[in-house]
Amino acid sequence: MAQRLIVIGGNAAGMSAASQARRRCGRDELEIIAFERGHFTSYSSCGIPYWVSGLVDGPEKLVARDPETFRRRFEVDVRMRHEVVGIDLDRREVIARDLVGGGEVRERFDDLMYATGALPIRPAWAETNVHGVFGMQTLDDGAALIDWLEGEPRPRRAVVVGGGYIGVELAEAMLQRGLTVTLVEKADQPMSTVDEDMAELVVDAMRELGVHVRTGIGVTGIEERDGRVSAVVTEEGPIPADVVVLGLGVRPDTGLAEAAGIPLGPSGAIRVDRRMRVPGLPGVWAAGDCVECLHRISGMPVHVPLGTHANKQGRVAGTNIGGGYATFMGIIGTAVTKVCDLEVGRTGLRERDASAAGFEFVSVVAESTNRAGYYPGTRPMTVKLIAERPSGRLLGAQIVGWSEAAKRIDTLAAALWNGMTVDDMTALDLGYAPPYAPVWDPVLIAARKAVDVLHHPSR
Amino acid sequence: MAQRLIVIGGNAAGMSAASQARRRCGRDELEIIAFERGHFTSYSSCGIPYWVSGLVDGPEKLVARDPETFRRRFEVDVRMRHEVVGIDLDRREVIARDLVGGGEVRERFDDLMYATGALPIRPAWAETNVHGVFGMQTLDDGAALIDWLEGEPRPRRAVVVGGGYIGVELAEAMLQRGLTVTLVEKADQPMSTVDEDMAELVVDAMRELGVHVRTGIGVTGIEERDGRVSAVVTEEGPIPADVVVLGLGVRPDTGLAEAAGIPLGPSGAIRVDRRMRVPGLPGVWAAGDCVECLHRISGMPVHVPLGTHANKQGRVAGTNIGGGYATFMGIIGTAVTKVCDLEVGRTGLRERDASAAGFEFVSVVAESTNRAGYYPGTRPMTVKLIAERPSGRLLGAQIVGWSEAAKRIDTLAAALWNGMTVDDMTALDLGYAPPYAPVWDPVLIAARKAVDVLHHPSR
Repeated sequence: MAQRLIVIGGNAAGMSAASQARRRCGRDELEIIAFERGHFTSYSSCGIPYWVSGLVDGPEKLVARDPETFRRRFEVDVRMRHEVVGIDLDRREVIARDLVGGGEVRERFDDLMYATGALPIRPAWAETNVHGVFGMQTLDDGAALIDWLEGEPRPRRAVVVGGGYIGVELAEAMLQRGLTVTLVEKADQPMSTVDEDMAELVVDAMRELGVHVRTGIGVTGIEERDGRVSAVVTEEGPIPADVVVLGLGVRPDTGLAEAAGIPLGPSGAIRVDRRMRVPGLPGVWAAGDCVECLHRISGMPVHVPLGTHANKQGRVAGTNIGGGYATFMGIIGTAVTKVCDLEVGRTGLRERDASAAGFEFVSVVAESTNRAGYYPGTRPMTVKLIAERPSGRLLGAQIVGWSEAAKRIDTLAAALWNGMTVDDMTALDLGYAPPYAPVWDPVLIAARKAVDVLHHPSR
Repeated sequence: MAQRLIVIGGNAAGMSAASQARRRCGRDELEIIAFERGHFTSYSSCGIPYWVSGLVDGPEKLVARDPETFRRRFEVDVRMRHEVVGIDLDRREVIARDLVGGGEVRERFDDLMYATGALPIRPAWAETNVHGVFGMQTLDDGAALIDWLEGEPRPRRAVVVGGGYIGVELAEAMLQRGLTVTLVEKADQPMSTVDEDMAELVVDAMRELGVHVRTGIGVTGIEERDGRVSAVVTEEGPIPADVVVLGLGVRPDTGLAEAAGIPLGPSGAIRVDRRMRVPGLPGVWAAGDCVECLHRISGMPVHVPLGTHANKQGRVAGTNIGGGYATFMGIIGTAVTKVCDLEVGRTGLRERDASAAGFEFVSVVAESTNRAGYYPGTRPMTVKLIAERPSGRLLGAQIVGWSEAAKRIDTLAAALWNGMTVDDMTALDLGYAPPYAPVWDPVLIAARKAVDVLHHPSR
């Protein structure tokens, strides 16, 4: 009899696992059932801001593979609009509710792939029946926001609460739709994924774009009129709002796991081993935005919900479920985004992370340009490096600049992954041509500066 | 009494050495004299095509530091239009000819920095008094070409002989000036810095641009009228030409060194040790386009004349001359260029290099895109990887594509520098956001494909 794999969650991690397992095992060996509570499978959450702005048609274009493709090409029994409401680890069954037709089904599994993803963080004041307040994680969330933005009375004033990637990207997207946009951030600075000195460059760009950025203000509630949001209430008074988007980050969706006795790690997400197995529970796998990963630089378990990790992890889990061998070797915290044309890249530890991990370090900020100084269109590029003292080992890097800034972080990510010191990095043989770099690439200039500071701290 | 450093050659390597040495030693410790036979110091040869095309004003903008800056800021006795014609290693003197005022001077040195650079390769037929035939290496070469292109009778038909970087870039530059351009290449394909399958993509782009690319044709001579070039003679008949540019590469300018008894390495360029010293000749240093470097992947000495190496090597030499400690750790052959908007990057070994070095290897070509598929402006990107078999160790990589293709080679260069296997590379944590990459970066997609081919050669 065929083994049976049940997948909970039809997005990147779960469906990568399903398709990878299927590549290794035919239907006679492995039956696969996937439950998805929403309307879409395998989509790009990261594309939602560009759908909202109108740059990308959605939602179909954001779907990498739809349920029919999984059914036909991968012979996966995909059950859409089915929410798994319970896992019985003893009987090895899941209980799923049909959100459309009603009723529940129980299905037996040999292997269970837990890939529920993450949920937007909603403070108490956002747990409301008032319409017009949106968390943003799934395509269904994106569709709901767009319906609202296109409904009547037409929203004109948007407030984004929280300045992470999604918040910053959606602020720009709604501005491009013609709304006035205020971003409210409790901390001193939004964009806390980079250090404050680098975030300042991003905030300047947001303000120049026309986003009202208000920092150091906590949100305490909302006001409503006729069941529709009318303002965000802050410590400094109300801010009128026809639409509110939460940009406070996401938390792993672990409710089902906790109820079933699947243990969480110190980050609050599900612990997995190198092969994406839940330790101590044979045949139970987890991957994607609901799990924690090892941060290779700090050595700590962290929750970093990004599609790139979810895809890798799903692939690893599926390979193993299918009888192959694969491991997920952790992350180093690489991420890129943009505000208008200003590009932002980061990898490794910020200063605060380096301190929290116990490192002593130096940090340098080097100004240079994306092209040879004389080449048309040359723009400034700022590279920050954080290096252990006295070893010089790279701990983290951040880049802010225009064209070709963001993805330069990959060069630093590869250096970081390999444990290079900034001394080593000054020798790197990087591409040079006037349209693409000064003769000393910004990465090399920053490494040289870090070496100077490490070896000649008095300069 | 102050020690005296004499620098032969006032471009990147020589003047980086001079300024680095000066940073460490004041004038009372070190006297520095630099001889330059041309009209410019410390300039970007790589910028010449953009000067020729009119994109960049020249020549001043291409000069990073002019003689006056070196005299005032670095207290270097820069002697322009002085050609060193002899080196007496026994008496530790150089003999320099004043190309303007006439006469010769002899100057004593304690340290000698040999940084003569490279010379365009001129076949016998190009050793001629006929006007309108140009090699291209120095700013003076660029100025001579531009004078000719702007003179009367105005040249209308250009022939570029040889399809290396300079040839390809100058073909485009002259096309942009309104000339008809033919590129004649003896080999089956120009752009031999990448493998033939990748070069084909570049040639397609050149042809689309309007360059007449003629391959497999040797040039045997030129025809002239009134002392001006009128045609290039080939094995397949004459090609009319009002201007001929040599794009056959460069050779190290070692004449003086050979005459003085400075030994050359197997590549035909000057041998140096890790600190840029000429072995066996204390106080004699060499750097830049006249030296050979260790190729870290093949383990062979190679001659790779590029500004980025010249700057690094000059800095290393200058640090050591100034009493510090620095080493040059070799190259891996990274280079980038573009043809119109088509970007080309390469690092490490091509297939033929890998074979010549004795490696067994697999090579894969992976097609993907520079952005998420749904994001506007997404264009194809082709990544080729060459990996040792069976170890999987990366040996080389090539990228051809549009926006953000060329500098992606740096990620691969960092992986290569660190000896990563393609298996390791599939785990790399690279930046992902829809405007900058698909969720699996082209680099990761190529690495995955290489792993598949290595481990499942039958697929």
